[in-house]
Amino acid sequence: MIVEAKDFLFAVAPGDVLPLDCGRSLREVNLRYETYGELAPDKHNAVLILHALSGDAHVCGHYGENDAKPGWWDDMVGPGKPIDTDRYFVICSNVIGGCAGSTGPRSINPDTGKPYNLDFPVITIADMVRAQQRLVAHLGVSQLLAVIGGSMGGMQALQWAISFPEMVRSVAAIATTPRLSPQSIAFDWIGRSAILFDSDFVNGNYENDFPPEHGLSIARMLAHVTYLSDESMERKFGRGLQDAKSYTYKFDRDFAVESYLRHQGRRFVERFDANSYLYITRAMDYFDLAASCGGQLWRAFSHAQANFLVVSFSSDWLFPTARSEEIVRALLRNNLEASFCEIRSGYGHDAFLLEFETLGTLVGSFLRNQRETWI
Amino acid sequence: MIVEAKDFLFAVAPGDVLPLDCGRSLREVNLRYETYGELAPDKHNAVLILHALSGDAHVCGHYGENDAKPGWWDDMVGPGKPIDTDRYFVICSNVIGGCAGSTGPRSINPDTGKPYNLDFPVITIADMVRAQQRLVAHLGVSQLLAVIGGSMGGMQALQWAISFPEMVRSVAAIATTPRLSPQSIAFDWIGRSAILFDSDFVNGNYENDFPPEHGLSIARMLAHVTYLSDESMERKFGRGLQDAKSYTYKFDRDFAVESYLRHQGRRFVERFDANSYLYITRAMDYFDLAASCGGQLWRAFSHAQANFLVVSFSSDWLFPTARSEEIVRALLRNNLEASFCEIRSGYGHDAFLLEFETLGTLVGSFLRNQRETWI
Repeated sequence: MIVEAKDFLFAVAPGDVLPLDCGRSLREVNLRYETYGELAPDKHNAVLILHALSGDAHVCGHYGENDAKPGWWDDMVGPGKPIDTDRYFVICSNVIGGCAGSTGPRSINPDTGKPYNLDFPVITIADMVRAQQRLVAHLGVSQLLAVIGGSMGGMQALQWAISFPEMVRSVAAIATTPRLSPQSIAFDWIGRSAILFDSDFVNGNYENDFPPEHGLSIARMLAHVTYLSDESMERKFGRGLQDAKSYTYKFDRDFAVESYLRHQGRRFVERFDANSYLYITRAMDYFDLAASCGGQLWRAFSHAQANFLVVSFSSDWLFPTARSEEIVRALLRNNLEASFCEIRSGYGHDAFLLEFETLGTLVGSFLRNQRETWI
Repeated sequence: MIVEAKDFLFAVAPGDVLPLDCGRSLREVNLRYETYGELAPDKHNAVLILHALSGDAHVCGHYGENDAKPGWWDDMVGPGKPIDTDRYFVICSNVIGGCAGSTGPRSINPDTGKPYNLDFPVITIADMVRAQQRLVAHLGVSQLLAVIGGSMGGMQALQWAISFPEMVRSVAAIATTPRLSPQSIAFDWIGRSAILFDSDFVNGNYENDFPPEHGLSIARMLAHVTYLSDESMERKFGRGLQDAKSYTYKFDRDFAVESYLRHQGRRFVERFDANSYLYITRAMDYFDLAASCGGQLWRAFSHAQANFLVVSFSSDWLFPTARSEEIVRALLRNNLEASFCEIRSGYGHDAFLLEFETLGTLVGSFLRNQRETWI
């Protein structure tokens, strides 16, 4: 399937801004997005997909005949696939604060004509959703059949059901959490510290050709370990050596897992921006659905109207099953329809990008059911 | 109890060196150590205690009347305490490669008159033990009643029973492992990368006043998270904010856990050396008792003669109970005496420095039993 990226520029008219949770606002906001399939005449087939920390709007398909790499959830989305673009009008929206086409810290500040960098306002998951709502309205969709996301995408999906209850028929929240644990906040802090400490960071004002690549690669390597499981690392690497038959007695990589991480760190620097990394991880740290409800998560969903599918993975220690169960209990207390499944998987948090067979069946049938019952 | 640190300088005679696993050797090696209590006339009461990554020879007592802070295991060791210095002659030896008085990368290389820095040979846990054996012999002890250690100290204790079986009557191996998992190797790699990437590292040749403090603090903060448990972080910090009543929408520390980690990182830089951090973590990475026995751990203990006490902590995810159980199975297969206990604790890996009541009872009675049965 050949697809193309599109841009939606909004808050450009005088007086029109995107208000943010921090009290500041943005004007001239762009959202990079992609759509697949056609909006049905009854407009009851629109599905919004939201991506995780390092994702983008390119959820499936190829940009051309010679584009080797498909979108990041190509096994889940496309003609005849679980999220079937022959049946659904699928929208995937990038987030603000990122570096994949939408307005973020490296964008030009219309007030100064220079990149925002650290003058970009600290955004929240709710701010990301507030921007996406403008896009969905712009596309002529007043109610979404489903909002679907994994990890940080799942946070956005839950936030959609809370911020815009009348626009959301159903939510599939996958490998996600109502809040980060102090352990996850700690890992984010360490990763951001590595970026902020990097002498090439220069307070966020680095040139594109000279990014703080050491700090960003440290942050990525650390985060990457939290996406895997102890079990999957044992199976994939064990204590295997990369090249040598025995220890080199040096500090260069000896172990296969060291080589793998270094590669992951280097690759990430090529495709992701350090300032965006600060902003997106901070948005995740701040995400806490229960915070404005006196710590009572169920109250956060008191105005939600959607039906929910909640999916966790057994070896996910970043956003473990217990967090998904909290979400489900909160939904049920509001008499909302909620299905829950823990998928047995050894892949850790990354399972939502790998366990397509079980996840596809679950999400596919959930979607069909939502469509069939929307008369 | 007022105690003093002592130094044992060895391998100083021409031709006398300390051979190392890497193939190189060290000459003019110093071990910093402390002793408490008296060696009994039958010499059957000597107990060797070995410390963890950032520990030192100062296991208990104070250096003087005005020394506010006692040694690192003061609740476990001293007159009338579980490791009773009224009954046992207790030796605590620092490790080579460290920065707490023994020969390490910041020591003067006798061949050049300058600090070794990265020219210091990469050492192993077995090398640390080989140096300690010289000390124990020097103290006139031909057989130790017990070798006791937690974490990396436990690795050394196990290695003692394997390298010098005739010198070890018993071993207490606490919160330890026969090898690092790929996940632990990964965390070590990331921490070392932060040090190696630090522009103040200058290939290990930094001045004492200008250490690579950013890199070392990143390494420490990361390691520190692995010493705690998700549960203990939840209890201690939750999502509490440090000062502000609400989010600051900045990248400085907002959360109490961020403030705590930053403090831990800064304090560590004041007391630990970055080069030593590289060497000691590498020694732990390389530690794999089964490696020279075709991956069969039980064979590693085929010449061991000691009785063993193996202790793990239920919430330790760095060196989990399953690793201790592997050790016990390997010991039992050799018909060695082995007692095993998993202590229920929420403190994670750090529990071996905190759970004194249960641990003290276990280790104290194990020691008394070993002493009473040594006729």
